[in-house]
Amino acid sequence: MKEFELIARYFQQPTLSWCNEIISTSIGDDCAVLNIPDGQELCVSMDTLVEDVHFPKQANPYYIATRALCVTLSDLAAMGATPVGFTLAITLPSANEAWLKSFSDGLIEIAQQYQCSLMGGDTTKGPVLVISIQVHGIVKKGCALKRSDACVGDKVYVSGNIGDGAGALPFVLQDPCLQTELTARYYKPFPQVEYGQSLIGVASACLDISDGLIQDLNHICKSSSVGMMIDSRKIPLSEALLQECSKHQALEYALTGGDDYQLAYTAKHCVKGLCIGEVVSGSEVLVPGREAKKNGFQHF
Amino acid sequence: MKEFELIARYFQQPTLSWCNEIISTSIGDDCAVLNIPDGQELCVSMDTLVEDVHFPKQANPYYIATRALCVTLSDLAAMGATPVGFTLAITLPSANEAWLKSFSDGLIEIAQQYQCSLMGGDTTKGPVLVISIQVHGIVKKGCALKRSDACVGDKVYVSGNIGDGAGALPFVLQDPCLQTELTARYYKPFPQVEYGQSLIGVASACLDISDGLIQDLNHICKSSSVGMMIDSRKIPLSEALLQECSKHQALEYALTGGDDYQLAYTAKHCVKGLCIGEVVSGSEVLVPGREAKKNGFQHF
Repeated sequence: MKEFELIARYFQQPTLSWCNEIISTSIGDDCAVLNIPDGQELCVSMDTLVEDVHFPKQANPYYIATRALCVTLSDLAAMGATPVGFTLAITLPSANEAWLKSFSDGLIEIAQQYQCSLMGGDTTKGPVLVISIQVHGIVKKGCALKRSDACVGDKVYVSGNIGDGAGALPFVLQDPCLQTELTARYYKPFPQVEYGQSLIGVASACLDISDGLIQDLNHICKSSSVGMMIDSRKIPLSEALLQECSKHQALEYALTGGDDYQLAYTAKHCVKGLCIGEVVSGSEVLVPGREAKKNGFQHF
Repeated sequence: MKEFELIARYFQQPTLSWCNEIISTSIGDDCAVLNIPDGQELCVSMDTLVEDVHFPKQANPYYIATRALCVTLSDLAAMGATPVGFTLAITLPSANEAWLKSFSDGLIEIAQQYQCSLMGGDTTKGPVLVISIQVHGIVKKGCALKRSDACVGDKVYVSGNIGDGAGALPFVLQDPCLQTELTARYYKPFPQVEYGQSLIGVASACLDISDGLIQDLNHICKSSSVGMMIDSRKIPLSEALLQECSKHQALEYALTGGDDYQLAYTAKHCVKGLCIGEVVSGSEVLVPGREAKKNGFQHF
């Protein structure tokens, strides 16, 4: 199959790739063209997933697609932005039609759910499967949620249960096709897009938890020149996770495991948030009672 | 070296990554944030380069970087857009500091030359080197050069010599570090940004030649529902190329080889263009006198 046939058959279909008031040109020209509405700004973020590093090579291609798009959309959620479209760079060892059909179906599910159109990209041949996705979203000018405005005295919140992604990993590695409540959190993490939008004007700093709660909160500390005191007893853990491991292990997954894609944020006060600590003067995250260990995923 | 140290040391430096009136947030948050000026639209394009597929693994990392960024900027040139910034997804087998320094220096040269800032991306570990770059540029609303408006009676033009990229490939493969006029065209193709801008209001259709002149012109034919009659005697060939191979071989490189990154476009009349044929009724590119053979690079 030629590259252009492959694109036409699996990517350039109206349920996955469409134009609208913002996307004036999509797949099929040298560039996609975006018209950003007056008073809005564009947020962009790019994530890469490599086989057997960020997902098992033998996983269902449907879920490789949902995972790849959801983890990237999570960055838009962290800015409070509304998804518009994405680009896809996919490097494939071969053009297997069944694999591509399933992968494309996974993209369609998430593209429809978040109304995020595939606008372009590049399809290349290479020895390993590598997927890079860039998402594009809009937010009212000056309102994007940054990491840099946390203030001493703010509370620290998370948007939901932490630790499920890391808790799922041993099961995913053991059987890439196992389908449980926990593995679903790994393969189809839930980008907190609406939650992020609701934090505009409320949160002083926000990010999504991808590399582990402590390591990610340290990014806010560094950007905002503050410290944080986290009460680990307040960190919400799911029943599904606690059924699979001890509370101590679950908490370690939450603090250092990554792959959660919940939002962590700071605010003076937030009714809907789950408060887990407070912003203090200092320069890093402290978790009283916990011995200093590994704080999160290291890529190299 | 940790991912964040690597990013800070090699990518997040003021000569490579800066903010300005358009880029309000760059590397260091969940997303980069772009403010598109009123009356302008945003063009985006993504390209992937895989080691030993799109460049030799042993090539100088400086030139891997210049090639990766230049071929992607060429897509902005093809729309008549002005570069603003780029994102970089790089998958590396290891974090070799000398390699990264040289790669980063190559990016800096092109980023400075085209005033295109590194705004974000993702750095991951994987078994092979894969580089995906997305470029972002602006163009006056409604003025981007598409592929779809060529008309019967228009002339077909190219912006310069064709065939050098493909002609350089055998030398590049034989010795990835050889530096000649021809290999320079391969490692540092010249994105025709200013030329593309000068075609706004002049060209009816435009693209950059990446996969071979015939195959690429066929994209215009398909998008515009026209045919083309190309006079192969008019295709401009460089002295550097003609010193290395026969005229017949040089012409095959030009017609089918790819890697040129010159612009090919149609217009009623263009003073500066090199006319190579005309738009006719039909559905594909015809080159009288040439036997039908391979028309361009096939990715799968």
